[in-house]
Amino acid sequence: MSIRLAIIGYGNLGRGVELAVRKCKDIELTAVFTRRAPELVSLATPGVSVYPIDAAQTMSDCIDVAVICGGSATDLPVQTPHFARLFNVVDSFDTHAKINDHFANVNAAATESGKIGIISVGWDPGLFSLNRLLSDSLLPGGNTYTFWGEGVSQGHSDAIRRVKGVKSGVQYTIPVKAALKKVRDGENPVLSTRERHIRRCYVVASEGADNDAIASEIKNMPNYFADYDTEVHFITEDEFRQNHSAMPHGGFVIHSGKTGAEDENAQLIEYSLRLGSNPEFTAGVLVAYARAAYRMNKSGDFGCKTVFDVPPGLLSPLEATELRRRFL
Amino acid sequence: MSIRLAIIGYGNLGRGVELAVRKCKDIELTAVFTRRAPELVSLATPGVSVYPIDAAQTMSDCIDVAVICGGSATDLPVQTPHFARLFNVVDSFDTHAKINDHFANVNAAATESGKIGIISVGWDPGLFSLNRLLSDSLLPGGNTYTFWGEGVSQGHSDAIRRVKGVKSGVQYTIPVKAALKKVRDGENPVLSTRERHIRRCYVVASEGADNDAIASEIKNMPNYFADYDTEVHFITEDEFRQNHSAMPHGGFVIHSGKTGAEDENAQLIEYSLRLGSNPEFTAGVLVAYARAAYRMNKSGDFGCKTVFDVPPGLLSPLEATELRRRFL
Repeated sequence: MSIRLAIIGYGNLGRGVELAVRKCKDIELTAVFTRRAPELVSLATPGVSVYPIDAAQTMSDCIDVAVICGGSATDLPVQTPHFARLFNVVDSFDTHAKINDHFANVNAAATESGKIGIISVGWDPGLFSLNRLLSDSLLPGGNTYTFWGEGVSQGHSDAIRRVKGVKSGVQYTIPVKAALKKVRDGENPVLSTRERHIRRCYVVASEGADNDAIASEIKNMPNYFADYDTEVHFITEDEFRQNHSAMPHGGFVIHSGKTGAEDENAQLIEYSLRLGSNPEFTAGVLVAYARAAYRMNKSGDFGCKTVFDVPPGLLSPLEATELRRRFL
Repeated sequence: MSIRLAIIGYGNLGRGVELAVRKCKDIELTAVFTRRAPELVSLATPGVSVYPIDAAQTMSDCIDVAVICGGSATDLPVQTPHFARLFNVVDSFDTHAKINDHFANVNAAATESGKIGIISVGWDPGLFSLNRLLSDSLLPGGNTYTFWGEGVSQGHSDAIRRVKGVKSGVQYTIPVKAALKKVRDGENPVLSTRERHIRRCYVVASEGADNDAIASEIKNMPNYFADYDTEVHFITEDEFRQNHSAMPHGGFVIHSGKTGAEDENAQLIEYSLRLGSNPEFTAGVLVAYARAAYRMNKSGDFGCKTVFDVPPGLLSPLEATELRRRFL
């Protein structure tokens, strides 16, 4: 029997989960829940119903695991504990500073219901976290560096679009090549914010807007841009549509350590992602962890988990013997 | 109280384990077992005793986990099941084709004793296996490529040294750059053995030996060299000692997949290692998994495991809350 998966929230990430489920023979999409009017949501998958989000309350018998596709700022802190009372759940909560609070809330709910809730799943937090943890465990005393990009940052793109005179805008985070090189060369550099990433902005200005004023306001925006080397490029609406509608992203986790009686041997671990679509890749990670959540719960486990708690073999649909044969 | 770790077999890998334990505040080296005369083995760690290997039989009360540092061909198939009757054990069994047989033998022994045996730990099998499994689970339907090097292959170096007229020799496995590029570009190429790796040999010939005959015998050696572009370079004994006594290695696991309704988005995952010392790095991996073996057993689990079965958080000495705070 297939694992019956529900999607809660049908934006870019929810659509990505729908597509990812199609590639899994052992998982079927059972329901999509939305805060919009269900009749306004049209799925890519025939035969699956869209329900108002409150209907989830009565459907715990026909759903094995739910992927919660809301935002970290206001949706997930409420939704993940709420739905963990009904189903096994997986979310992509990414407010690093609040992860332990979120963990405690989800753990309380999932412990009460006897379900599993895996939080902060995706690539960062998620796969990058896993690599930071592994590297530090295998080569203690080394230095771990995380670089993001080249890719679109939603938060920074939103910030650009709030500037007066900006019609459309997108921001790419780009790792500084010289910094990457120093890290790979084992120099263990101390890097300022500016030395790690460049922020490159493409802006479509409204008619009659003052480009210099826009560029200056962006470059000097505190928190978002002031601490970085920021480029602002003005482009036409056509260019914007043609070249900047995709959602690429990626990044690097590099760990540089030493071994030997005199620390004479340099050891370097590097993990990198180059993603054509950030939400679709994140969705693939969520679906694999949804499979694991269901299996962990089936074997008697419950409460809140993160990628650190999940045995990797549970992520694959293949049997343990086959996994060892193919991948070990 | 520290985890009491024993080393069984004190060659390059055993010495690496000894050095790796020094960097772990929660683990202490308790004993080293050897097949040699114990008085001939001198450790880098003061106060630790060296015992003949048979003494292990009587010491199960004072050892929490043993790292078995023998060879895969003849040592580990016998030693790992044997010692799994006494202790939690970890080994680096790397004969890919026989892993499931080894698993069955260790599982029978460890199930009987109620201990944990984690087999095939290191970087390949081990970390590379983990990345092959993860990538295939997150991006099903993609292609995974493994490249090894640049680094010293012990098996191929041994093969060179068996050739008549060769005094010393070392072989470096080197990934073919053009192949790496095609894979990274998402071309999903079909690659022959020759297209994946180059084999570069450095040879010190005996006095009066026929260099052409040596080069030809190496290049045409079936299984080892005949299917590759093989280079043979003759060097002096001094050059050999100065430039070729280290044991570097490394490699790449690259997974190339696609997502989207029409598979229109390319996604690339790359994991790579650049190791100044292969045995010392492998030792670091073994020690982290030894920690996990002890903890899994303490929480009631037993039997044979691989890297696929171990929750990553168990590899770190840090507490779960601290792990989430630092690495998630």
